Amino acid sequence: MDYIIGIDVGTTSTKALLYDTDGKIYAKANKGYILYQDTPDMAEEDPDEIFNATLSAMQEVVSKSDLDGKVVAISWSAQQHSLIALDENHKPLMRTMTWADNRAERYAAKYKQNGRGLEFYKRTGLPIHPMGPFYKLLWLKNEKPDLFKKAAYWVGIKEYIIWRYTGVLKEEVSMAAATGLLNMKSVQWDDEALKETGVKPSQLPELVDTTDKFQGIHPEYAKVMGVDEDVYFVMGATDGALSTIGVGAIDTGVLAINIGTSAAIRTFVDKPVIDPKARLYCYPIMKGKYLVGGPINNGGIILNWAHDSLFGAEQEAAKLLDIDSYDMLSRIAATVPAGSDGLIFHPYLGGERAPLWDANARGSFFGLNRKHTRAHMIRAVMEGIMYNLYSVSLALKEVSGEPKAVLAAGGFARSQLWTQMMADIFENDIIIPESYESGSLAAMFLAKMALGMEDNLADIKKYLGKENRYQPNEETFARYRKLIPIYIRLSRDFSTEYKDIADYQREFTDGK
Amino acid sequence: MDYIIGIDVGTTSTKALLYDTDGKIYAKANKGYILYQDTPDMAEEDPDEIFNATLSAMQEVVSKSDLDGKVVAISWSAQQHSLIALDENHKPLMRTMTWADNRAERYAAKYKQNGRGLEFYKRTGLPIHPMGPFYKLLWLKNEKPDLFKKAAYWVGIKEYIIWRYTGVLKEEVSMAAATGLLNMKSVQWDDEALKETGVKPSQLPELVDTTDKFQGIHPEYAKVMGVDEDVYFVMGATDGALSTIGVGAIDTGVLAINIGTSAAIRTFVDKPVIDPKARLYCYPIMKGKYLVGGPINNGGIILNWAHDSLFGAEQEAAKLLDIDSYDMLSRIAATVPAGSDGLIFHPYLGGERAPLWDANARGSFFGLNRKHTRAHMIRAVMEGIMYNLYSVSLALKEVSGEPKAVLAAGGFARSQLWTQMMADIFENDIIIPESYESGSLAAMFLAKMALGMEDNLADIKKYLGKENRYQPNEETFARYRKLIPIYIRLSRDFSTEYKDIADYQREFTDGK
Ligand SMILES: Nc1ncnc2c1ncn2[C@@H]1O[C@H](COP(=O)(O)OP(=O)(O)OP(=O)(O)O)[C@@H](O)[C@H]1O
Ligand SMILES: Nc1ncnc2c1ncn2[C@@H]1O[C@H](COP(=O)(O)OP(=O)(O)O)[C@@H](O)[C@H]1O
Repeated sequence: MDYIIGIDVGTTSTKALLYDTDGKIYAKANKGYILYQDTPDMAEEDPDEIFNATLSAMQEVVSKSDLDGKVVAISWSAQQHSLIALDENHKPLMRTMTWADNRAERYAAKYKQNGRGLEFYKRTGLPIHPMGPFYKLLWLKNEKPDLFKKAAYWVGIKEYIIWRYTGVLKEEVSMAAATGLLNMKSVQWDDEALKETGVKPSQLPELVDTTDKFQGIHPEYAKVMGVDEDVYFVMGATDGALSTIGVGAIDTGVLAINIGTSAAIRTFVDKPVIDPKARLYCYPIMKGKYLVGGPINNGGIILNWAHDSLFGAEQEAAKLLDIDSYDMLSRIAATVPAGSDGLIFHPYLGGERAPLWDANARGSFFGLNRKHTRAHMIRAVMEGIMYNLYSVSLALKEVSGEPKAVLAAGGFARSQLWTQMMADIFENDIIIPESYESGSLAAMFLAKMALGMEDNLADIKKYLGKENRYQPNEETFARYRKLIPIYIRLSRDFSTEYKDIADYQREFTDGK
Repeated sequence: MDYIIGIDVGTTSTKALLYDTDGKIYAKANKGYILYQDTPDMAEEDPDEIFNATLSAMQEVVSKSDLDGKVVAISWSAQQHSLIALDENHKPLMRTMTWADNRAERYAAKYKQNGRGLEFYKRTGLPIHPMGPFYKLLWLKNEKPDLFKKAAYWVGIKEYIIWRYTGVLKEEVSMAAATGLLNMKSVQWDDEALKETGVKPSQLPELVDTTDKFQGIHPEYAKVMGVDEDVYFVMGATDGALSTIGVGAIDTGVLAINIGTSAAIRTFVDKPVIDPKARLYCYPIMKGKYLVGGPINNGGIILNWAHDSLFGAEQEAAKLLDIDSYDMLSRIAATVPAGSDGLIFHPYLGGERAPLWDANARGSFFGLNRKHTRAHMIRAVMEGIMYNLYSVSLALKEVSGEPKAVLAAGGFARSQLWTQMMADIFENDIIIPESYESGSLAAMFLAKMALGMEDNLADIKKYLGKENRYQPNEETFARYRKLIPIYIRLSRDFSTEYKDIADYQREFTDGK
């Protein structure tokens, strides 16, 4: 029997799963690592800490599976937008800057303000935001010039890890696209973007396809992991692309929505597309497959805020009732009608990437009257998070048409109320596939394609198991139809005040 | 020894105080009555129920005082904007419509929209709002035509009560001004306003000054009350005018602010003034004394909302700690810095009269980030109520110049934090006079003037006792200077969405 490891290098931990070639899971391992936030805007990780996490995760799944055959391939999903400078011996000169690092904010703001950001967006599909390595490079070049000059190579965390294992420096197309240095149309490094950031082509890894495979693991790592030295490394793709594939959202018009701590809404289109307001990214993944979508900061983390800061007492009650305190919130929210009796919440407590791309954005409740209670507030929070996702889907509709289906995953789906809310707000069936760890599953499937065991991406659906379907309720969405336009107009009305309130908060509170 | 009764016919109860002519209080009585709200917009009271309340309140203070002398005068403060139709025998044809009755909203909206409301405002000083009898008459004429035709007289509650006691139908200038039927400049019934509402001069009481006095109480009422039949009735004035006089805010440039359940900000000017945006009323009170100001719906009632709907658990804690649950709120608010770490609350949960004059206005929190807690929210509520009052004071400044002093009264002053906040937000000393029941006190003083015992309004200050002074704190008001402009701009940004959210709330919730 042959086995394949699908490994997903996430923001806060790495998950490894060992599958057989029929997709059956034998073992799962999860190893975490520290996110360094020495200053409010910093979000860094140690590349070697992450490498060790991948090694120990794979070692664990192999040892836990007592295989009667061999691991034929290791296939990689990984966090996007990370950036590390390596010296000529491929040693890291810095910790890896993750997508959450905001220190390049001033550079993104300048390029947004002077229109050049939009120009580069139209070439590379990278929205104008400090998350993108394009802006991180501008920040490093100007604010850490010595380090910038010493850099022999510029890579992301996946490229570094694969180099550590094999001595091969390659970068697959989807990860390259997420750096903002890849031309969307030619699917080659973009000479304008390289010139602008002062990066030479020789400093970037060899560009390869997601299904590129090669052998050559260093024997000592094969030994530690318990795999043969002829195991194939399959490059894989970004976590965004693979989790979209992994929920079965492969055909054009099928939306994949994930609501975990943060959220994302993605779809595949068959040619590069540009959103005139640069609200959506567009990354080439494979021939005829471009991933279009929006990363959203304010997902479950906002429900967590409401849970902690508005419902302290109710957490105690939940313990006494022996029910999950988040389920308690859903039960409280269910006591008020859809639309929260006209109370509207904007979820932008953490600033927002899609659809606003405004780190200064903040949250709000609007429409309060004396009949509103905390039950209205928690329902409004859940609805507001969904309104925001829906507003991103409207931008997506402009470039990829009416959604044929919506496949959703993530911690939010543990609440039936919240999932039904999504169906009513989107006015669309919401399908919750029973698929599990969609990123690793898709990495495994990509390995099978690389090894010629599969030839059609859509066949991944056979691994997805049953699904729950939520249908929109007419009486309820009639209310949302009235509230959503107010929500959207309010977003515009608020936008002029975000900068001043965020400046105030930085000046008067961040000291604490 | 001579005694004077100062009686204040309030919205929810009547307070009677018995003073000797040195201003010493001998007894106090308070009789409540029902506010009828059969439909959400109705706010009516029974005129005879109120008459009985005045009778029993005066009977109680006389009996409790065991006087060694006689009551020489009864002087009247009363709620403004009330309206009752009387038949030819002066019998009420309806309950009295109070200032809080909103059923004339559509007529006020029409006159605001077609510009005619502004024309009448410039003649009468009555802002364009359903509270005004001018608009209530338009509503009655169009929607209750039979009753309108049967009406022999149109009066307010004070006029009806004094007629019940004396058979004399008079209306003093300040109460007449608050009907919107009095010309500000001529201080006579305005023929245009009468023509517009279809009211004939003969249907209105005789116009007299606030210090007009006369005898002629019906003997049976004198007997019940325990006063002599030659007791003088002194017409008095509106509760707004008298509570301003009663806190000692008599000179031009001195602001009187009351924050009870609702709130008000008032000042005297020496000639009629017009606010181009009709945000302020202007009512002639006496020769050379015009009361300019704004009635505010959202006073302490909003702190009550927050107390009930956001701090349930803390009320229990306050009981255990044996402290007042509203003081508990102040203590919680004191744990966060001034400016609530950049969280801004607009208090318009009950729609708002001054400064917005928009019954559709609603409340909001703006600027939320993940560090904000309910402690921030309660402080923001207290600050938001003050920001709103401050924004009315800015309109007042345009017509009456920089305030020389600010005299404040009402339940809010029980919180030192909230009162200090007022000093910091207004950047002005706030004086809390120890005066008590300012309305009845000023009514008593007016009686003394009518009886020739006083001749200068400013001399009321000798009855005011000591005062507490709160001074603005420089470091704190630097923060408010940054937040207030954002608060004001947000008010404008929100205003375009109020109608739609209020329409939604009426359509989908008022049924419940
Ligand atoms: N300890 C306290 N701290 C702060 N505010 C308080 C406190 N106690 C009461 N209040 C506020 O004062 C308000 C009541 O004030 P007050 O007694 O002057 O009202 P009122 O006379 O009934 O109202 P109105 O004058 O508008 O008719 C309450 O609505 C409450 O919000
Ligand atoms: N019972 C529940 N009902 C609704 N939402 C929940 C529930 N439990 C967790 N969540 C939400 O799901 C989020 C975590 O989702 P998950 O997909 O596990 O996150 P991640 O993969 O980002 O760590 C939490 O932030 C929380 O808001």
